[in-house]
Amino acid sequence: MDDDFISSILSGDRRAIAKAISMIENEDSKISNIISEIYPKTGNAFVIGITGPPGTGKSTLINRLIEHYRKLDKKIGVIAIDPSSPITGGSLLGDRLRMSNHNLDPNVYIRSMSSGDKSGGLSRYTRRSLSILDASGLDIIIVESVGSGQSEVDILKITDAVVIVLMPELGDDIQIYKAGLMEVGDIFVVNKSDLDSSDQMYTKLLNASKIKNDKWMPQVVKTNSITGSGIDRLITSLSEREKFLTELSEQSLIHEHRIKNEILDVMLDDFSKSFSKKILNHPDFQNIVDQVLVKKMDPEQAAMILKKRLNYD
Amino acid sequence: MDDDFISSILSGDRRAIAKAISMIENEDSKISNIISEIYPKTGNAFVIGITGPPGTGKSTLINRLIEHYRKLDKKIGVIAIDPSSPITGGSLLGDRLRMSNHNLDPNVYIRSMSSGDKSGGLSRYTRRSLSILDASGLDIIIVESVGSGQSEVDILKITDAVVIVLMPELGDDIQIYKAGLMEVGDIFVVNKSDLDSSDQMYTKLLNASKIKNDKWMPQVVKTNSITGSGIDRLITSLSEREKFLTELSEQSLIHEHRIKNEILDVMLDDFSKSFSKKILNHPDFQNIVDQVLVKKMDPEQAAMILKKRLNYD
Repeated sequence: MDDDFISSILSGDRRAIAKAISMIENEDSKISNIISEIYPKTGNAFVIGITGPPGTGKSTLINRLIEHYRKLDKKIGVIAIDPSSPITGGSLLGDRLRMSNHNLDPNVYIRSMSSGDKSGGLSRYTRRSLSILDASGLDIIIVESVGSGQSEVDILKITDAVVIVLMPELGDDIQIYKAGLMEVGDIFVVNKSDLDSSDQMYTKLLNASKIKNDKWMPQVVKTNSITGSGIDRLITSLSEREKFLTELSEQSLIHEHRIKNEILDVMLDDFSKSFSKKILNHPDFQNIVDQVLVKKMDPEQAAMILKKRLNYD
Repeated sequence: MDDDFISSILSGDRRAIAKAISMIENEDSKISNIISEIYPKTGNAFVIGITGPPGTGKSTLINRLIEHYRKLDKKIGVIAIDPSSPITGGSLLGDRLRMSNHNLDPNVYIRSMSSGDKSGGLSRYTRRSLSILDASGLDIIIVESVGSGQSEVDILKITDAVVIVLMPELGDDIQIYKAGLMEVGDIFVVNKSDLDSSDQMYTKLLNASKIKNDKWMPQVVKTNSITGSGIDRLITSLSEREKFLTELSEQSLIHEHRIKNEILDVMLDDFSKSFSKKILNHPDFQNIVDQVLVKKMDPEQAAMILKKRLNYD
């Protein structure tokens, strides 16, 4: 391994960081060694996950947070996860953040990751990138995402504070969207608080947040990311969350649980790939597919037969 | 297997259908046999997937579609996939549809499925339920979902027509949300067309839709599900899509491709479960986790070592 490259990452060299993350995206075979080398230096950054449905003002809110943490002289990284595709291209979340003036600040590192073709492995990519940013000496890392899918929920689980950004007047659907995220949310933000019914939503969230079965009591904050009102309350909540995690007696248990999930995630991801290949290349596969096509068997029976032929129980 | 139960499902008996889907949700061991029995009777329903971010008016739109198809005397099923959790409970999408007057109609069957704890297997649950509804003699089956996650995209892939419902003025984020769905969308709906900037969004979508690399040219439709305006155009688009699929020379190829994915999906789902168990119960697992905890190795190295011990390449 190139020692210079490792030291450059650890010293926070932006070009080295960018190169390492590109290696992660391109599945460069050298990246595993790099991650191993830098791994002992991880664990210092406070990782904030920010998610919410389209149009709730996440990017403006993140810009406010960057502003605040920069005043405290913290180094900040942002990973924006775009569900964009190779075809439509673009990495809109990241671009929007980059358009802000923070992009000129050498202590703010913004990076987009496309979730495009990384269905299963998205959390693995994100975790590897988090390790790089963490080891590079950043104090705060923000992970921004849009969707409510399982892979995004998986990513939120590897962050220290999960912030769900909502807004009033998105219709009843918002309740549904939120429902799936209720257990992972540590802080709920009702953004665009100038809109009618923001108080109503705030109360609803306050009531719903009491359900969470955890020592951390989820907090609900009203903000207006345009005017900046309420941002101080959000920052207080984030500090409280950080303090909570530091003082928690079960901290090592939580950490252990997370590591177990990480190992499992990596193994399943690797295994799925080689397993799929094995199935598709199995000499009996086409014949079995043909039988399903003419409805002599259903896909589940087909799967069972193939499992036996592959000698998996 | 209970022949009476199978015949009841095939004859469209609502209680039998409900029971079968509950068996799917409860992972009842008898369900595989039931699916095998009814499978030869599937393949007649036209399956419409309807998705879009919160607040775009999907449920109202679906009620409009039900109204229309009922006038043509079609039998309709709706599967509403709620990302709701066991804690917050509720199946809001389905409930909202059920509150409509269609629920009294014996030829409309509405069912909610919670995506709660079915992360990986969601598409499997949905597919099994689709088989039941399809075999029961329904003409049209609508699958409604909210999120933009991978598992929901997987579900859309098993439908015949993917309808993405958007609305103007959801902010720039909407572009991002849409991006991930662009390749799977067959019909894009700009709902709430009374809002400003709906024309702008319509034009943007028209341009974007030209990107899709497929014989089917994605269509863009402006609707107002409250007043009903534009619904006829959406229905025309759906009919055209159905006609397109019937006349397509590669139809059997598409069908074969879908079956291959189904088999792979079932096998991977089963395998992930038994594989995870094997890892968690491996005698060396805790020791390896401990080494990651003290940063003697990183999770990826840990995964590699465990893979060797488990004798997987």
